[in-house]
Amino acid sequence: MQLGIVGLGRMGGNIARRLMRDGHTTVVHDRDAKAVEALTREGATGAGDLAALVKQMSTPRAVWVMLPAGEPTEQTIAQLADLLGPDDVIIDGGNTFYKDDIRRAQQLAERKLHYVDVGTSGGVWGLERGYCMMIGAEKVIFERLEPLFKTLAPGVGDIPRTRGRSGPTERAEQGYIHAGPAGAGHFVKMIHNGIEYGLMQAYAEGFDILKTKASDSLPVDQRFDLNLPEIAEVWRRGSVVTSWLLDLTADAMVEDPQLGNYSGSVSDSGEGRWTIDAAVEQAVPVPVLASALFARFRSRQQQGTYGDKVLGAMRFGFGGHVEKKGE
Amino acid sequence: MQLGIVGLGRMGGNIARRLMRDGHTTVVHDRDAKAVEALTREGATGAGDLAALVKQMSTPRAVWVMLPAGEPTEQTIAQLADLLGPDDVIIDGGNTFYKDDIRRAQQLAERKLHYVDVGTSGGVWGLERGYCMMIGAEKVIFERLEPLFKTLAPGVGDIPRTRGRSGPTERAEQGYIHAGPAGAGHFVKMIHNGIEYGLMQAYAEGFDILKTKASDSLPVDQRFDLNLPEIAEVWRRGSVVTSWLLDLTADAMVEDPQLGNYSGSVSDSGEGRWTIDAAVEQAVPVPVLASALFARFRSRQQQGTYGDKVLGAMRFGFGGHVEKKGE
Amino acid sequence: MQLGIVGLGRMGGNIARRLMRDGHTTVVHDRDAKAVEALTREGATGAGDLAALVKQMSTPRAVWVMLPAGEPTEQTIAQLADLLGPDDVIIDGGNTFYKDDIRRAQQLAERKLHYVDVGTSGGVWGLERGYCMMIGAEKVIFERLEPLFKTLAPGVGDIPRTRGRSGPTERAEQGYIHAGPAGAGHFVKMIHNGIEYGLMQAYAEGFDILKTKASDSLPVDQRFDLNLPEIAEVWRRGSVVTSWLLDLTADAMVEDPQLGNYSGSVSDSGEGRWTIDAAVEQAVPVPVLASALFARFRSRQQQGTYGDKVLGAMRFGFGGHVEKKGE
Amino acid sequence: MQLGIVGLGRMGGNIARRLMRDGHTTVVHDRDAKAVEALTREGATGAGDLAALVKQMSTPRAVWVMLPAGEPTEQTIAQLADLLGPDDVIIDGGNTFYKDDIRRAQQLAERKLHYVDVGTSGGVWGLERGYCMMIGAEKVIFERLEPLFKTLAPGVGDIPRTRGRSGPTERAEQGYIHAGPAGAGHFVKMIHNGIEYGLMQAYAEGFDILKTKASDSLPVDQRFDLNLPEIAEVWRRGSVVTSWLLDLTADAMVEDPQLGNYSGSVSDSGEGRWTIDAAVEQAVPVPVLASALFARFRSRQQQGTYGDKVLGAMRFGFGGHVEKKGE
Repeated sequence: MQLGIVGLGRMGGNIARRLMRDGHTTVVHDRDAKAVEALTREGATGAGDLAALVKQMSTPRAVWVMLPAGEPTEQTIAQLADLLGPDDVIIDGGNTFYKDDIRRAQQLAERKLHYVDVGTSGGVWGLERGYCMMIGAEKVIFERLEPLFKTLAPGVGDIPRTRGRSGPTERAEQGYIHAGPAGAGHFVKMIHNGIEYGLMQAYAEGFDILKTKASDSLPVDQRFDLNLPEIAEVWRRGSVVTSWLLDLTADAMVEDPQLGNYSGSVSDSGEGRWTIDAAVEQAVPVPVLASALFARFRSRQQQGTYGDKVLGAMRFGFGGHVEKKGE
Repeated sequence: MQLGIVGLGRMGGNIARRLMRDGHTTVVHDRDAKAVEALTREGATGAGDLAALVKQMSTPRAVWVMLPAGEPTEQTIAQLADLLGPDDVIIDGGNTFYKDDIRRAQQLAERKLHYVDVGTSGGVWGLERGYCMMIGAEKVIFERLEPLFKTLAPGVGDIPRTRGRSGPTERAEQGYIHAGPAGAGHFVKMIHNGIEYGLMQAYAEGFDILKTKASDSLPVDQRFDLNLPEIAEVWRRGSVVTSWLLDLTADAMVEDPQLGNYSGSVSDSGEGRWTIDAAVEQAVPVPVLASALFARFRSRQQQGTYGDKVLGAMRFGFGGHVEKKGE
Repeated sequence: MQLGIVGLGRMGGNIARRLMRDGHTTVVHDRDAKAVEALTREGATGAGDLAALVKQMSTPRAVWVMLPAGEPTEQTIAQLADLLGPDDVIIDGGNTFYKDDIRRAQQLAERKLHYVDVGTSGGVWGLERGYCMMIGAEKVIFERLEPLFKTLAPGVGDIPRTRGRSGPTERAEQGYIHAGPAGAGHFVKMIHNGIEYGLMQAYAEGFDILKTKASDSLPVDQRFDLNLPEIAEVWRRGSVVTSWLLDLTADAMVEDPQLGNYSGSVSDSGEGRWTIDAAVEQAVPVPVLASALFARFRSRQQQGTYGDKVLGAMRFGFGGHVEKKGE
Repeated sequence: MQLGIVGLGRMGGNIARRLMRDGHTTVVHDRDAKAVEALTREGATGAGDLAALVKQMSTPRAVWVMLPAGEPTEQTIAQLADLLGPDDVIIDGGNTFYKDDIRRAQQLAERKLHYVDVGTSGGVWGLERGYCMMIGAEKVIFERLEPLFKTLAPGVGDIPRTRGRSGPTERAEQGYIHAGPAGAGHFVKMIHNGIEYGLMQAYAEGFDILKTKASDSLPVDQRFDLNLPEIAEVWRRGSVVTSWLLDLTADAMVEDPQLGNYSGSVSDSGEGRWTIDAAVEQAVPVPVLASALFARFRSRQQQGTYGDKVLGAMRFGFGGHVEKKGE
């Protein structure tokens, strides 16, 4: 079937490619004309602006917006809403806050437009591996677009079937689900990212202890000369902590056991933060997910935060402690 | 080659079986005569006590102790030390604290005995999948015993090779490593378990938010009727959070989405606690690993800890707050 | 000077009383006529509704709204805005989210009304001790109302002066500050409450360890028969952890060392949650404040959260661990 | 009565002074002869070595060791044990790990010596304010030494009496308690310090949010130009978070609102770490106390820990994320 795609960055471009490989057609637009041109050479229909994109599509249309969350996505959806007609669909494949999805779906419904939010995991690997998708939509619209999702998803592949499942493979086993109404897709994806932060930080802390145990700063009789790339590798082999994130860690450590290419300044994105906000709103204790987020905040700070200075000032106040060099 | 095995529980028995399948011979003992008898029928040489086990082995001997950590292991090693002779090896395959390994290795060295600690992950799945092993030993002893480790380990299997690795497969790729001298094996295994707790808690918190979002206690317009088994399944398919632990979660949720067989009272073992002690000793901040351990402690407490009552008393003191029912 | 007060609960009523004791006059309203009547007997001018209250005041008026945050406050302010005239002031003394203050101030400014937010700590003790106030307002309006704040504040009292301060006492030393424009008062109060949660939880955890150390569940040779009321008392005497919260804890423990009147189910309020949201928004790591909030969430949960069951299911999956009774 | 004191640093010297002021006599030793000489001029009897100190005392003797915990204290106690006679007492006033106290008490008991551990809070302020003391000892020995403790303690002073207490003031109200047998004093002091870390970190995090809210890095319309010294001051006045630690913070902020004398590199001591170990041993969840300790660890680390680099490597692995400058 046909899909309009706005935003041809790494994600949007590869979505178009994966769809076309499987026989779907795409009408594509990007503010960078070269990106449009490149995809046109790969079989897409190019569009110089949103109006042209809409005009070249057959109804009912479905347009996938694959832009940075926030203003770029918001504005593009507003413009599309003016151009599209009854029963057309706008899909947001970005990292939008789920409450914005709910609001947009209500606003677009008043204009007889449909809204779909697709939380997508898989990033740069999606073209080959397929995209894991959590989708928020009206049921009938989800079903209308299902051929697209089926193509974009990884499919069953050679992943062993979950024990207890039988019969024909379900959507989830192919790598996409209808999570619920508008917002539900991004909600589930948000939690996915929250968990991701927690998993990553668990490995990071473990390797930090191992690294420190091998460090010159310990007395020699308390030290183990541990080989971290070997440890990451052996844990991939039948241990309880095997995971894709561990695979990636093993990759990186083979390249450079010191990870010298990385400064250790770690970004965070909206999803990690919103996960904590959601937990707070729902009164769910999430010490691990919050700690993982705070560790990222801390990783980006210069030494000597104001809070740390407050500690120093108090210690001086009650104990006359003067900070030692190298403490 | 030949291995003595003391302790024929699930782990010890399956270790014997996996070795014999690959052509090794075993001399086995357990205080439960039936366990010895059963393995004898599968080809092992049975021994009624430790002296008999030692007598039936050819030198230099290697005896694998597979008993609960603490007193049972400690006493058995002490008895073996009296029975064994120069250049013999005692292997502790249990969950021993690594500082106990270091102490034992020193004590046994004075008697010209060797000590090996094997941290083993893989548990009940080891017979079929093989055991992931982190080994602490003198280099020459590790090499002497390597044929055993090679058999017990999972081997390369069909796990994709780590990017950047080439040439013949290394030990780590087959699922076992020589982590360092005595104690290093259990140290690495300890950190493995610490990470395991963190990973598990990250998933637990994420699913808790999802479950709560679907709960009756939320106003209906803030609720999503999420299908947790589907979500666990779809994340197995190309998402960033794929892992063996997620596979197991998906298994359990297919069987019962409510997980009604589980009370939610979660045990912890020495390794998880020692990981925190090690981090504190080495001054490594481990908020996620500690939070994961504390969550287990909390899961086992009745409501109304003394600490919580202290909070209630303070709130009454400064604000006249009386606890509300159902708060 | 004259103040209108809407809401004569414990806080609002005592504010009126403390003002009248110092010679100010009040015009008061509450939906409960008896509350109005009672204060009238103490010297206030009663008003049956908001219109009557406004009518009985001289211009420029100042009306203090002392109602539960959220709808009750929001609606009352909207009604007052319709009744008041240019240059009049609405004061919100409740626990409003500071972004709501900013919004309201902007909306009221369009109607030439002024908005003041007063974060108040001191609760049930305010009538005697005075109220510690953090005030958000335009500078000129703050100064107009300052005689009221001066009366309501505790004053210098016998609290030792901060080292390094000299000259005439400043506002802060009398117990009130002009924190900044609208919203700043509630922002500072919000952080105050976030800190309060952290302080309380620090004591709670410490006493929990002490209590457990005295517990029957420990082997007798590892136990100390600690006297908690004595410990709380002695720490009031020259230790580093002296505080008002500790005083209150000592009060409660004298009454009943077991704190048997408290169930340990601990409420939290908006401020504690918003503090975490603010920290997340500003990318400030707040592990202690977040942990304290989560501990409250956890205190209100039944045993066996879904997250805990997920842990149990995983443990069964990889290790065949069956939950033990009493674990 | 008479007390021997070994170690005349700030603590030991002031203990001697406070005792002599109240009519007690002291026999003092320090490896620095000048320190001995100085105290001799203030009325103490000086001793050139431990033997001389013991010789100059009347029996039964009591010798207070006020040295750094660990080797210095351990060795001095061993030497004193050889010099002292039956029924003499050794007092450890330092920051010893409570399990070391228990071991020492047992060893000394075999030689008919008594051991007392005194956990002391109050630090540099003790000479004037008195020392808050938590004491582990046999009951009869505690009572024998009580006149000393009574003098060293702050006494009742002008601290308001705890509600519900009546009759003659108890020991705790004078600032010292008999916490239990040997080890109990340092155990209670250890928890005191654990709580202290938690309290300090709660304030630190709160002020960090306030500081950040006033920061240039925020868009101007989201910023409040908060005055932190004023906020610290006003919270001293009737708020819920009043405490001695807040007083000290207010002192420091008056001197320099930026706290520019402090680097923010914050030490930790044994007690803070042992508190976490004790909680882990007793299975008590202590998220706040642990977070506070970890924050100190983190404050001393250079940016870019190995753990943080692991996060960076994973993010690059799954998302192609390249670290941004200034992230």
